[in-house]
Amino acid sequence: MQLGMIGLGRMGANIVRRIVRDGHSAVGYERRAEHITELSAELGASFQGSTELEKFVGMLDTPRVVWVMIPAGATGAVIESVAELLEPGDIIIDGGNSRYHEDIRRAKDLEPKGIHYVDIGTSGGVFGLIRGYCLMIGGEAETVAHLDPLLRSIAPGVDTAPRTPGRTGTPSTAEQGYLHCGPAGAGHFVKMVHNGIEYGAMAAYAEGLNILHQANVGNQDDTEHSAEVTPLEHPEFYRYDIDVPEVAEVWRRGSVVASWLLDLTAAELYADPNLDSFGGRVSDSGEGRWTVDAAIDEGVPTPVLAAALFGRFASRGNAVYADKMLSAMRQAFGGHHELPPA
Amino acid sequence: MQLGMIGLGRMGANIVRRIVRDGHSAVGYERRAEHITELSAELGASFQGSTELEKFVGMLDTPRVVWVMIPAGATGAVIESVAELLEPGDIIIDGGNSRYHEDIRRAKDLEPKGIHYVDIGTSGGVFGLIRGYCLMIGGEAETVAHLDPLLRSIAPGVDTAPRTPGRTGTPSTAEQGYLHCGPAGAGHFVKMVHNGIEYGAMAAYAEGLNILHQANVGNQDDTEHSAEVTPLEHPEFYRYDIDVPEVAEVWRRGSVVASWLLDLTAAELYADPNLDSFGGRVSDSGEGRWTVDAAIDEGVPTPVLAAALFGRFASRGNAVYADKMLSAMRQAFGGHHELPPA
Amino acid sequence: MQLGMIGLGRMGANIVRRIVRDGHSAVGYERRAEHITELSAELGASFQGSTELEKFVGMLDTPRVVWVMIPAGATGAVIESVAELLEPGDIIIDGGNSRYHEDIRRAKDLEPKGIHYVDIGTSGGVFGLIRGYCLMIGGEAETVAHLDPLLRSIAPGVDTAPRTPGRTGTPSTAEQGYLHCGPAGAGHFVKMVHNGIEYGAMAAYAEGLNILHQANVGNQDDTEHSAEVTPLEHPEFYRYDIDVPEVAEVWRRGSVVASWLLDLTAAELYADPNLDSFGGRVSDSGEGRWTVDAAIDEGVPTPVLAAALFGRFASRGNAVYADKMLSAMRQAFGGHHELPPA
Amino acid sequence: MQLGMIGLGRMGANIVRRIVRDGHSAVGYERRAEHITELSAELGASFQGSTELEKFVGMLDTPRVVWVMIPAGATGAVIESVAELLEPGDIIIDGGNSRYHEDIRRAKDLEPKGIHYVDIGTSGGVFGLIRGYCLMIGGEAETVAHLDPLLRSIAPGVDTAPRTPGRTGTPSTAEQGYLHCGPAGAGHFVKMVHNGIEYGAMAAYAEGLNILHQANVGNQDDTEHSAEVTPLEHPEFYRYDIDVPEVAEVWRRGSVVASWLLDLTAAELYADPNLDSFGGRVSDSGEGRWTVDAAIDEGVPTPVLAAALFGRFASRGNAVYADKMLSAMRQAFGGHHELPPA
Repeated sequence: MQLGMIGLGRMGANIVRRIVRDGHSAVGYERRAEHITELSAELGASFQGSTELEKFVGMLDTPRVVWVMIPAGATGAVIESVAELLEPGDIIIDGGNSRYHEDIRRAKDLEPKGIHYVDIGTSGGVFGLIRGYCLMIGGEAETVAHLDPLLRSIAPGVDTAPRTPGRTGTPSTAEQGYLHCGPAGAGHFVKMVHNGIEYGAMAAYAEGLNILHQANVGNQDDTEHSAEVTPLEHPEFYRYDIDVPEVAEVWRRGSVVASWLLDLTAAELYADPNLDSFGGRVSDSGEGRWTVDAAIDEGVPTPVLAAALFGRFASRGNAVYADKMLSAMRQAFGGHHELPPA
Repeated sequence: MQLGMIGLGRMGANIVRRIVRDGHSAVGYERRAEHITELSAELGASFQGSTELEKFVGMLDTPRVVWVMIPAGATGAVIESVAELLEPGDIIIDGGNSRYHEDIRRAKDLEPKGIHYVDIGTSGGVFGLIRGYCLMIGGEAETVAHLDPLLRSIAPGVDTAPRTPGRTGTPSTAEQGYLHCGPAGAGHFVKMVHNGIEYGAMAAYAEGLNILHQANVGNQDDTEHSAEVTPLEHPEFYRYDIDVPEVAEVWRRGSVVASWLLDLTAAELYADPNLDSFGGRVSDSGEGRWTVDAAIDEGVPTPVLAAALFGRFASRGNAVYADKMLSAMRQAFGGHHELPPA
Repeated sequence: MQLGMIGLGRMGANIVRRIVRDGHSAVGYERRAEHITELSAELGASFQGSTELEKFVGMLDTPRVVWVMIPAGATGAVIESVAELLEPGDIIIDGGNSRYHEDIRRAKDLEPKGIHYVDIGTSGGVFGLIRGYCLMIGGEAETVAHLDPLLRSIAPGVDTAPRTPGRTGTPSTAEQGYLHCGPAGAGHFVKMVHNGIEYGAMAAYAEGLNILHQANVGNQDDTEHSAEVTPLEHPEFYRYDIDVPEVAEVWRRGSVVASWLLDLTAAELYADPNLDSFGGRVSDSGEGRWTVDAAIDEGVPTPVLAAALFGRFASRGNAVYADKMLSAMRQAFGGHHELPPA
Repeated sequence: MQLGMIGLGRMGANIVRRIVRDGHSAVGYERRAEHITELSAELGASFQGSTELEKFVGMLDTPRVVWVMIPAGATGAVIESVAELLEPGDIIIDGGNSRYHEDIRRAKDLEPKGIHYVDIGTSGGVFGLIRGYCLMIGGEAETVAHLDPLLRSIAPGVDTAPRTPGRTGTPSTAEQGYLHCGPAGAGHFVKMVHNGIEYGAMAAYAEGLNILHQANVGNQDDTEHSAEVTPLEHPEFYRYDIDVPEVAEVWRRGSVVASWLLDLTAAELYADPNLDSFGGRVSDSGEGRWTVDAAIDEGVPTPVLAAALFGRFASRGNAVYADKMLSAMRQAFGGHHELPPA
């Protein structure tokens, strides 16, 4: 089967590589010509590409399958442009990080033109080429069924994890690592929640490891404590010098918190035991926010996911004004001497 | 009635002033002689004091009433010293910020000596002289009853707030502003929870005012956003330049969030509209921590009180290691370029 | 000055009463004729009304001032209807609980017609008639200035609270209890955040009082504990039977947490000491959600406000599915015997 | 090498099985004779046991190694009893779930007798026999080194996970799945934090899956909404019927949130898709509480771990009093009609 890929950055190129390995062919569109040249050299006859959108569309067999894999900010405009060039029966896939609201709107906009719209949330990051990509898919059932050969090649496959006890017989697509989640937007909706969970789980590890990191506060000179906080009641309970990188490593085997995130954490801590290469300002890229927005709309309590999100906001200094306000209040009612700016 | 006061700092001296104004007399102990001299000059024959503990005790009528009003760290030793000098039937009051655990222990230790122990959580801060002090009291009922004339003079009095609808007849002591909460430790327990609530309410104001303060993010150059976060979907909704000090002021009258904390906040914001005199490192002084500890022991969910406490920890930089860990994970799975130290 | 009021429910009628008391006149529109009759009887010549919108508009002097005070769900349609009947220079005020997004849109829609739009967030609840209403106002400066005589009569007035230290001379409108916060939407934006803070402060009190309520867990038969949780390490610290209504009362005078919310809490607890008339399902009415949405858009951490909101969601049973999931996991990894449905 | 095991429940017996398989021998103490009989039948000459503590001690080679693997509540008394029977140079291991405070005390108590004390936090649950147990160890370095042959047999071994990139040569013990974390208590300290993280990660999954579960609220009859909450602004965004068990399955392969906890969750959801066998009351067993206690002592912000803990408290009805308080306040200031008890 043939796949058209718009955007040959890391993710787009690796998806092309996975399907070509599996016997499919690919056509690529990318403004940076060298990306096309390199991929052609690597993949040979199974791949051709163009820096011009019209030529790219012309290279595709009908019904065309066009996967858009570019930064979320640019996705809308590109989908509009390519839709102009497509015909009824063609398929557009947004494999990026669009908010699912846009999928619902786009699917409705493209329907009168007879173009089928599919949204695919794609997880796997830099490891997707080897591990395969976990695919969460929204769209019409028949369209998604049509894409099955490609999806199967992109997904990790059932052998990449032990089968869940009780599941026997022909594996479901979920067991292969891809799932049709529902109509337009359902794929990005499920991917959004996936990332929201990721924020929460990441914060759980980070908070816990921070407790280990500071387990020696009972040994510290109490200057900081006496100035700003009440003295430790039991300093004798906090005299551990814990080797955090080794703890992350030991939890990888046999423990309840073993996970791929922990594997990565252990690798980072092995390479940079004190995390000196990081400044502590943590970005957030939309999905975590949208997850909490959705939870609020649904009336679903998500204190953990929200706390994880707010921690990132605070890491970038966005709580400072509120903190100054607290100091102002303390000074006002208690006459506490609050610290001035450094 | 006579009160012995150990510690003539701001709080101790003001309590003495309140009872003397009401016709009682006071004896003070304080190592800094000038505090005694000044208070004697101010209060005349109703006050005498000493820099020696034994002399202080000698000046007291029996049964002696000794109120200890010194920093929490020093309270234990002073209570032990003065207890050596007292006789059966005498009363020791801890009016400071001890953890209630210590009250339970001290009451038990003093019982064999026949000395009565009373713990009084005292709220009012720098305004107590004028407003009166809210007193939360733990100890034996008879002992607390014996102290009633003094407590009534220290407390604000029923006229300082409108009576609660439905309450008629002789006001209860709670309506006067003092309350016997239960046996030893109950006073400091209630005061501890009072402060825990204070943390939560303070954070509620500070967070809300921070939203107002940053209501113009839609006007900002998007450099920060594009580098670290997803762009604002609707910048047109965030183009307000809100005058936060005026908002704090307007809420003081007629609104649901009117409170004494808000009065103080409005005053601080009027004096320093941008809070430039504060560095944003917020101290915590024990009670907020103990409140959450107690909630955990009881199995009572206190997400708001705990979030307020953790915000203070984070304001002092204690989340940085966890934040670096999050950046490390993001780099590992997503190839995200995370910010190095500044 | 004359005010046209659409909606003579409790809030609308009380606003009319306040301005009439202050020498203004009012015209009312209300479908329920008896509301008009009653208000006419009460207010005499200063008030007239109609059950027909066109007649109502016809009774108004130009430039007309039309204050819409009806449930948020109906506001949009009514504003559209009345706008059809107005002329350039007339003013429409939305004094209800609309989301500020709608104000921005409505102001833009009405601009070509020359109709001025003002949004006023109104706090005061059932007590507004006596205490006055705190008014947070968005719109063009000149329009708001034109309304000043009415706003001043509706607001509480400077005498309802002591002036903030440092503020002297002619009181600002904020000190009177009303404030022009910015262009269209700014009034409802500030009111929204006000309510967000209210959620947080309410939860702070509720959590703290719950700790007091359960301060006797050390006396309880440990069946619950042994089955589901670890035994209390120090039951001797949790043997207090705290009189929660009296504690709420005592904090009203002299304490740092004194507030109007606390006054109301004390009144409720006096009337219903065990809160037997409440089922524990807490509603939320939009502003708390929108506040957290805005915080997320701005990147402002609001862990306390969000925790308060999520607590309300959970109170209505919306966490149960998540809780079952936790039990399922516990059973899976630990062989824990988890409780089946009751 | 020989291991003495006190307590032949599931965990104790499985540890014995793992060391015997690896060529070691074991002696067991257990009051329930049938446990000894069965294990003897299974393991033959490599195992012997007794229902009497003195006989058990007599069967052990010196220096004796006694691993206590019984419920936390009984551990202290048993350690005291067995310590009476041991000699200088012998080793006692607490492999249960004691709080690390107790380890510090016990190690100090046993030191004068020349008995070495080791605390081992053991993770692995019902799967430990096959997967091996992750061991977190506290105690003197020489004593832990002496136990190395046994620990290596109990731990999972390096082959149970891919080696962390960059780690080459002889695997560290952490890579084998066991780690000497520090002096007395360090093992249980690290295990405690491990469980704290587990609470947070579990809640992250549960909250996210709950959002998926309720993604169809836009299709629901709005009765609930209109009575208690503001209507959904965009019901069209919440019309998904998501197959939660299939989503849990698809995330197991290739996604960032793949983990052992997710494997278990997928298995539970496959077996009981609507989680009908659970009542939604979630237990907590100490470590989650102690983790937050430790974070508070250290001044480390742990909003995620605390939110997870509080969610469990609330699942058991412990927020109801606070929720009633919120309804009481709402009724008081807004005249809201709050729901009575069902």
